[in-house]
Amino acid sequence: MSKLVGAALLGQSGGPTSVINASAAGVFIEALGQENITNVYGAIHGIKGILNEDFYDIGQEDMDELLRLKNTPSSAIGSVRFKLKDPNVDSSEYERLLEVFQKYNIRYFFYNGGNDSMDTCNKISKFFKDHDFECRVIGVPKTIDNDLNVTDHSPGYGSAAKYVATSLMELYHDATVYDTKMITVVEIMGRNAGWLTAASALAQSKGQGPDLIYLPELPFDLDDFYTQVLDVLNTKGKVIVAVSEGIKTKEGKYIPEIYTDLKRDAFGHAQLGGTAQVLAQELERRTNVKVRAIEFSLLQRSAAHLASKVDVEEAFNAGKEAVKAAISGKTDFMVGFKRLSSKPYQMEYVLIPLDEAANTEQKVPLEWILPHGKGMTQEYIDYALPLIQGDCKAELEDGLPRFAKLKKVRVTKK
Amino acid sequence: MSKLVGAALLGQSGGPTSVINASAAGVFIEALGQENITNVYGAIHGIKGILNEDFYDIGQEDMDELLRLKNTPSSAIGSVRFKLKDPNVDSSEYERLLEVFQKYNIRYFFYNGGNDSMDTCNKISKFFKDHDFECRVIGVPKTIDNDLNVTDHSPGYGSAAKYVATSLMELYHDATVYDTKMITVVEIMGRNAGWLTAASALAQSKGQGPDLIYLPELPFDLDDFYTQVLDVLNTKGKVIVAVSEGIKTKEGKYIPEIYTDLKRDAFGHAQLGGTAQVLAQELERRTNVKVRAIEFSLLQRSAAHLASKVDVEEAFNAGKEAVKAAISGKTDFMVGFKRLSSKPYQMEYVLIPLDEAANTEQKVPLEWILPHGKGMTQEYIDYALPLIQGDCKAELEDGLPRFAKLKKVRVTKK
Repeated sequence: MSKLVGAALLGQSGGPTSVINASAAGVFIEALGQENITNVYGAIHGIKGILNEDFYDIGQEDMDELLRLKNTPSSAIGSVRFKLKDPNVDSSEYERLLEVFQKYNIRYFFYNGGNDSMDTCNKISKFFKDHDFECRVIGVPKTIDNDLNVTDHSPGYGSAAKYVATSLMELYHDATVYDTKMITVVEIMGRNAGWLTAASALAQSKGQGPDLIYLPELPFDLDDFYTQVLDVLNTKGKVIVAVSEGIKTKEGKYIPEIYTDLKRDAFGHAQLGGTAQVLAQELERRTNVKVRAIEFSLLQRSAAHLASKVDVEEAFNAGKEAVKAAISGKTDFMVGFKRLSSKPYQMEYVLIPLDEAANTEQKVPLEWILPHGKGMTQEYIDYALPLIQGDCKAELEDGLPRFAKLKKVRVTKK
Repeated sequence: MSKLVGAALLGQSGGPTSVINASAAGVFIEALGQENITNVYGAIHGIKGILNEDFYDIGQEDMDELLRLKNTPSSAIGSVRFKLKDPNVDSSEYERLLEVFQKYNIRYFFYNGGNDSMDTCNKISKFFKDHDFECRVIGVPKTIDNDLNVTDHSPGYGSAAKYVATSLMELYHDATVYDTKMITVVEIMGRNAGWLTAASALAQSKGQGPDLIYLPELPFDLDDFYTQVLDVLNTKGKVIVAVSEGIKTKEGKYIPEIYTDLKRDAFGHAQLGGTAQVLAQELERRTNVKVRAIEFSLLQRSAAHLASKVDVEEAFNAGKEAVKAAISGKTDFMVGFKRLSSKPYQMEYVLIPLDEAANTEQKVPLEWILPHGKGMTQEYIDYALPLIQGDCKAELEDGLPRFAKLKKVRVTKK
């Protein structure tokens, strides 16, 4: 193994999670302790920050505050939604990245994101190799959607799942308080994969959750849905429905789209609103029962106060493992999780070639999804439960979370 | 003081809170230990349960589960929205209540609710007195809206305020993650009083909250609002707005109503949506910036996992104090809180005549509200901070809250 001496850079990409800062903390703290790493930088808003030579000098930060990142939601260094151009069509962005990496002698590059991001760092790494610039590139997974391939799960999922299950249990208690008929429709994130909506089955398994659960992996039929809701309504008088924002008809239309069509037919104009709201309006029209639409919205990905301890520690360790792997000479891998056992939960960190992790989507296995909105099988429950264990949150200051306060010293442009 | 021997009955009324069960636990546990109290009943869905002779026999419950009520959101015995008729117009409901109280020898009646409920128990008490039925009636306050009169604050407010402030801090981190312009509009409960929206200023005081805060105590002007949002947008690029669901124009119209008018003018049809959603649509139209509407919805009143320890303990103790007061011979009072000092926080339980507590609304003092949506004065911060201190939540079972499981044994009808 060659001894490679230079700076380390972390960038983050895509929608944040409760624990993406925990991974940043893992990368930063591990990198600061490595003698081959001369400087530790955080790219401000991911790839954009690199293109603009816009970095934080993490060496200037206090260790206490870096540790507080473990319990601080979202991305302290900033994230970005930015797709690099195809280098075969236009390589100018890649040339610029190479120029910046050379100028700052960045020899360790860590990129924390979802499958798009793994594709990005894969392409960057290949470009650097083709131009004989030695730089070790390791991806760190991140997504509440849990849709990254090959790895058993991804940091961010466990905490978001815990939020979804806990909040649904609480809503269950709230929704059953009156003796009047009521339907509650809760919308959960996940455009293509239903992992997060599936977490509502954890509340259901406690008898304090949704009656009906709809994932985007199965086609959604509005009339079947209505029949299923009515069945529960007639039996129990209360219905709680958990729907993924991404449910689609067998023709591939999202719910707000079909409703727009319905409404267009009836009144000649389009209707705004998310999936839950549209379903709520339609149910209210059909049942004459009070229907409430609730969106967990950004809360489900930022509620660090309800983070899973397992998730926080794994996110932190994934960051550390990425640095250790790079220092040991590895490149072009993503840190992944391999489950050895669920009861008791045993997991080991593994390195997954970026090629395998990039650009593919891991959906919920169809055999784990019960038909007719009935929920999830025990296999899913056994899979998910270990990921939501334990509490881990910021200490309180004045009764409110004391989140990390970084100095955010910018690196002087060269 | 006469020795009054008989059953005790608790009813709950109105929208639930994170700690309304804590007050129930206080009443039940204290009543079960009183030798003058022969039976402890819970009215199923409040007044409706009494009219129907539908009670739980709390004496059948395990003490462990009753204690778990302290951390279980919403009302385990069920609540109700039901207004008794004016006894001077139609006294049949009051006669029925008297009949039921006599039949079950209920001599201690505790009613847990807001100002309507205090009015209800006041009327019931007067009716019983007029009919020479001795029954001691004590109200226990409850409302996330904090709008009960005379008492310094009400159980339920502290926990909801903590939820609002914590969630806004987390949303602040989420909303600032990209370097693109964005506006977030968060809608908070409180139709007439802005106490809960004011709690967003606790997040603001940490530099991690909304830029603009709008309470229903001040008239809302859409053009001024737009100017204020634009000011922040031009300076910071990001705007977070906290609005009460109850903000109204100086003509007394709620926001969805004025928007309906606007839309009617423009397109000839009405538009659905809550306050935040309507403001978001209007801001997006005017600014061309991405705007996100978030409603805390039922989560803000049911998020027991984020309850304030001060609130939980006060709610529990208020229930106990109610029983102790009744046993000591008091009737026609509501348990209230009198603040002795904010720094350090010192409070004593007091008895407030039901007449004073009933049917009046305590709004946020105008002198605590900064103009132009700027937030709240330090007086408000000093008032609110003691109420959100400490954590107090259910133990975890499988990583999820272990809420109380009552046996719910129904009392045999006589």
